Amino acid sequence: MKRVRIALLGCGTVGSGLVELLARERRRILARHDVHLVIERILVRDVAKARRYVDRRLLTTSAVEAIDRECDVVVELVGGVHAAGAYVRRAIAQRRDVVTANKALLAACGAELFADARAAGVSIGFDASVCGGVPLINVLQRGLAGDSVESVRGIVNGTCNFILTRMEDGMTFVDALRIAQERGFAEAEPEFDVDGWDAAQKMRIVAAVAFDRPVVEEHVSGIRNVTPEWIGRARLGGNVIRLVASAKLTPFGVAIRVEPRELDANDPLACVREENNAVVIRSRAVGELTLTGKGAGAMPTAAAVLADVIAIGTATAAVRAQEAIA
Amino acid sequence: MKRVRIALLGCGTVGSGLVELLARERRRILARHDVHLVIERILVRDVAKARRYVDRRLLTTSAVEAIDRECDVVVELVGGVHAAGAYVRRAIAQRRDVVTANKALLAACGAELFADARAAGVSIGFDASVCGGVPLINVLQRGLAGDSVESVRGIVNGTCNFILTRMEDGMTFVDALRIAQERGFAEAEPEFDVDGWDAAQKMRIVAAVAFDRPVVEEHVSGIRNVTPEWIGRARLGGNVIRLVASAKLTPFGVAIRVEPRELDANDPLACVREENNAVVIRSRAVGELTLTGKGAGAMPTAAAVLADVIAIGTATAAVRAQEAIA
Repeated sequence: MKRVRIALLGCGTVGSGLVELLARERRRILARHDVHLVIERILVRDVAKARRYVDRRLLTTSAVEAIDRECDVVVELVGGVHAAGAYVRRAIAQRRDVVTANKALLAACGAELFADARAAGVSIGFDASVCGGVPLINVLQRGLAGDSVESVRGIVNGTCNFILTRMEDGMTFVDALRIAQERGFAEAEPEFDVDGWDAAQKMRIVAAVAFDRPVVEEHVSGIRNVTPEWIGRARLGGNVIRLVASAKLTPFGVAIRVEPRELDANDPLACVREENNAVVIRSRAVGELTLTGKGAGAMPTAAAVLADVIAIGTATAAVRAQEAIA
Repeated sequence: MKRVRIALLGCGTVGSGLVELLARERRRILARHDVHLVIERILVRDVAKARRYVDRRLLTTSAVEAIDRECDVVVELVGGVHAAGAYVRRAIAQRRDVVTANKALLAACGAELFADARAAGVSIGFDASVCGGVPLINVLQRGLAGDSVESVRGIVNGTCNFILTRMEDGMTFVDALRIAQERGFAEAEPEFDVDGWDAAQKMRIVAAVAFDRPVVEEHVSGIRNVTPEWIGRARLGGNVIRLVASAKLTPFGVAIRVEPRELDANDPLACVREENNAVVIRSRAVGELTLTGKGAGAMPTAAAVLADVIAIGTATAAVRAQEAIA
């Protein structure tokens, strides 16, 4: 039995979800993976705030204490770039494995952090940073480990897909956006989503995993120019409009495109409705592989974080033993 | 850099595919995973037979020599139950990790082999045994490691799905089956596929991975009772007929069902056409996750085998080091 001690940084939506999920799944994880997961401490801004499932004695407001005191994995769920980046750098310097759901951080300084981690001999798990509960990074890194990926295209922004499927049902862009905001999956400032930047950020992370090559071309346009007329015209031909993000290998590097496209009814992305995500990976030996699921939400994202913690935890004990020899 | 020495048992369709794929991907695998994969020898029945990509000096007709001489992973691709079972038992007894694509073997004596492997401290990789290039086992074991699976349902027999989609286009069962046989993905004796037994065997393996609980109920019926009238009537309502295999948890254990079902056009399985496979995994935190892709074929299956070899190879060096301490 391997004991894996977790320092959790941040206890917001996903962090609380992780605490709840771990409480629910701890025994099953021990039985199946022979890993006993223990949250040793939790970095929060306000220790007085009421939180379900959380043992208050674990709370601290000191990031230094949270990261520096002995542990095996630092789980970064504070979000944002500056503080989160400093925490992750400190964790790596202390030779902790890191798991993060922070897409913005990886987009801003992923290359630097992965180089630091490699130099320190630690891992960064980041499956939760792209498409929440869809294990896209796991499939690219492990399921397709023996194959060459040629292209990845998908619906990776749930807000845009929700709006487009509602517009298919006759709703206006403005009304559909309002409902998405009321349901909590569109931001009060929706530009980042509806103008395609969120999708582009995700595809940059996916491209780095799939291709190991630099991005040499990027075209980003969002869903503001999708008119009810275009949707109606597509529908007459049995087609649908989706915001499609893609990354593919060219002779010079990776080309990323995010744009609304009219899809044939037989396209695997055409059946994806509401706030779901879907990604079609085309690789040389396997051909087309499609993953569809919930791209966001506290529990799906927490499950992705937990899967990374278990993968790292399973490897940790063996690697530590190897270091002891070297 | 870790050097992983492979003993390959069997060089038929999938075995030759593996040799070709490894020749193509070896350098990329070394660069990405820091694992150098070397096929040390290949067990065949006839060393004189012409084989592309294969170095003849590696060929042997002696299973004892192939398994017993020093290596790290034994890849079993001979198929069938009796000889393959003896080889896998011998490999485990010699403390080799094993990778297999042999569904029939796992269905016949999987529980025994996994217990042997556990006792010997070695792994059995078997993602290639179910749904070929769709990394279903990987997603269940790793991507959803932190979540509880509630049910799995899918289209897991490509032959039946091909026949059903051709019948939708107006073809008869007999004609569609003949075309499937001509294309090489239906057997000359198609009963095992069309009567649902192949799908049931796959679901038993999936259920063992997903639930760790005994199968207490099994209902299997195939596609022979699907009539053109049923397909036509479904079509009028916008629906389709698919052979759906499912495994779900009940209070007493796992219930498996394989039967043709009429699916709503919005069902994620309804868009799956031709010989493709698709599986919908429902888990407590992640919700519905769908994987769609090529369920059979030499190269997709070889890619699944190779991914398992890489995963085991990556872990092997660390584990060997751990043993050296203990």
